Amino acid sequence: MQKFCVLGGGGFIGTNLILRLRDQGADLRAFGHPPTFPETVPGVAWTTGEFDDTEALWRCIDGCDVVYHLMGGSVPGKADADKVGDLRRSVENTVRMLEAARGGGIGKIVFVSSGGTVYGITDRLPIQENMPTDPITAYGVSRLAIEKYLNLYRHQYGIDYTILRVSNPFGEYQTARQGQGLVATLLICAFTGRRFEMWGDGTTIRDYVYVGDVTNALLAAAHPRLPERVFNIGSGTGIDVNEMICLVEAVVGQPITCLRRPSRPVDVPASVLDVSRAGALLGWRPTYAMPDALDRTARWMKAFLAKETARGI
Amino acid sequence: MQKFCVLGGGGFIGTNLILRLRDQGADLRAFGHPPTFPETVPGVAWTTGEFDDTEALWRCIDGCDVVYHLMGGSVPGKADADKVGDLRRSVENTVRMLEAARGGGIGKIVFVSSGGTVYGITDRLPIQENMPTDPITAYGVSRLAIEKYLNLYRHQYGIDYTILRVSNPFGEYQTARQGQGLVATLLICAFTGRRFEMWGDGTTIRDYVYVGDVTNALLAAAHPRLPERVFNIGSGTGIDVNEMICLVEAVVGQPITCLRRPSRPVDVPASVLDVSRAGALLGWRPTYAMPDALDRTARWMKAFLAKETARGI
Repeated sequence: MQKFCVLGGGGFIGTNLILRLRDQGADLRAFGHPPTFPETVPGVAWTTGEFDDTEALWRCIDGCDVVYHLMGGSVPGKADADKVGDLRRSVENTVRMLEAARGGGIGKIVFVSSGGTVYGITDRLPIQENMPTDPITAYGVSRLAIEKYLNLYRHQYGIDYTILRVSNPFGEYQTARQGQGLVATLLICAFTGRRFEMWGDGTTIRDYVYVGDVTNALLAAAHPRLPERVFNIGSGTGIDVNEMICLVEAVVGQPITCLRRPSRPVDVPASVLDVSRAGALLGWRPTYAMPDALDRTARWMKAFLAKETARGI
Repeated sequence: MQKFCVLGGGGFIGTNLILRLRDQGADLRAFGHPPTFPETVPGVAWTTGEFDDTEALWRCIDGCDVVYHLMGGSVPGKADADKVGDLRRSVENTVRMLEAARGGGIGKIVFVSSGGTVYGITDRLPIQENMPTDPITAYGVSRLAIEKYLNLYRHQYGIDYTILRVSNPFGEYQTARQGQGLVATLLICAFTGRRFEMWGDGTTIRDYVYVGDVTNALLAAAHPRLPERVFNIGSGTGIDVNEMICLVEAVVGQPITCLRRPSRPVDVPASVLDVSRAGALLGWRPTYAMPDALDRTARWMKAFLAKETARGI
């Protein structure tokens, strides 16, 4: 039976991945900050720890067939505010983990990179995996540096890996508490009447992918020695902020009030991924239609907000 | 009058650059470890310091029109032996410097990157600047990460920069003391009768560029706001180890004895740069013919070894 470990299992994608793996009865461990939703982790061998505690981390991943690396990945804005800290937290700690793995002990690493930031501003859309990577955010640079170190350790020590460059994920367990996730933020605004702060004129285009599709891709990426090592994971479709506001308003049945702010230099104007490589080589494609995915997410958010209200938050 | 600062001015390329700038009567400062050849720096405002001493470094570069970043760049083999240390020394310290430069104070940064390592193993030769960058050495990864941070700070804070991806430089002031530089090592073997340790069968192909050409490129790169930001700097010609042995034997007039060792996984089999972009946009091309460049280098090495012998080293 395959052994899995999820590093950063307490976050948005991690929670979804753990639930899916648990449903499949997988031999499962997790490591990271305390889970945002502790109710999702009973039955999972959970280790609470910091990513820079390489010894504790190694005890957790040693002997695993698949290590999902989702750590240090949640808050792009914070990375820009403290670029040195971001470099240490994400890149340096990854190198420390890879150093520990040099002598063997793990089967492969699946790393969730950022399809929305590693490419920077591109000449063409949709973006293919072999296009230039010139990030304009610290988050994008550190994700890219991790990708390069993974390739280095594969070359020097034979450590297998797969990189998923995930576009803009949304879905259950995304709370928007750290100012992240357009869909989650819009749902909160629609349900609570809070005003939506819009950076720019709402024409910024993103590729929004439902987390159910992301977890499907994560499972597909677990197979050893895939013929390519980097895969875009997205919907393959661009939606701008104004369109998404309309879609969320339609799903919730409530209008959203916008408060306009000047655009930020860290925002790429448009990002849409070409996901044909994942289709051809992982047998993966996005399967949830946008209205269905938004509806699932809205129902989760409604229940989540009701619980928060009941708790007096 | 333009003000220049050379970070890492005490090394091989730094020494050559300082001599050239001094000959031109430039307003010149330098920062770094104590110079290998102190006789080259009188008349230069020299600050001895560590690259992680951001305050001392900033005092040195504040107000400069052109900052040459040549630090942390000399010993690829050491980077692989201590990847975390290399990441800190080269990438993290560069980010600290860029943080200090956010508010202005310097005109532009010229960074010496590594044309021989940032590309990794390529499909085609010669290598063009827009080809994939998948280094197989830690040194290549950290050079590439610095390139990406430079681009980030340009985007976010308008800090101008130019990157020179220099191939395998050789010439005066390369001592091979840290096991680096094929030409310098072969010259020492030819002059002293020491055996040459050859890794692999001698068919590894490199693009050897004379340091006089490299300093020409560094001067050309000082111009502000060039239309491209990354330039290959090399001879554009591939030479394998066996050929170079013959060339050096011919220049010195002495045979070299080889001691064969197994090849190392960190060696890219072949690296030759396409330097046409630098020709078109910097007006730069390699001007020294190989026999002439080797002859100049051999004369310097002979004098250097004679001085070492006189000193009893």
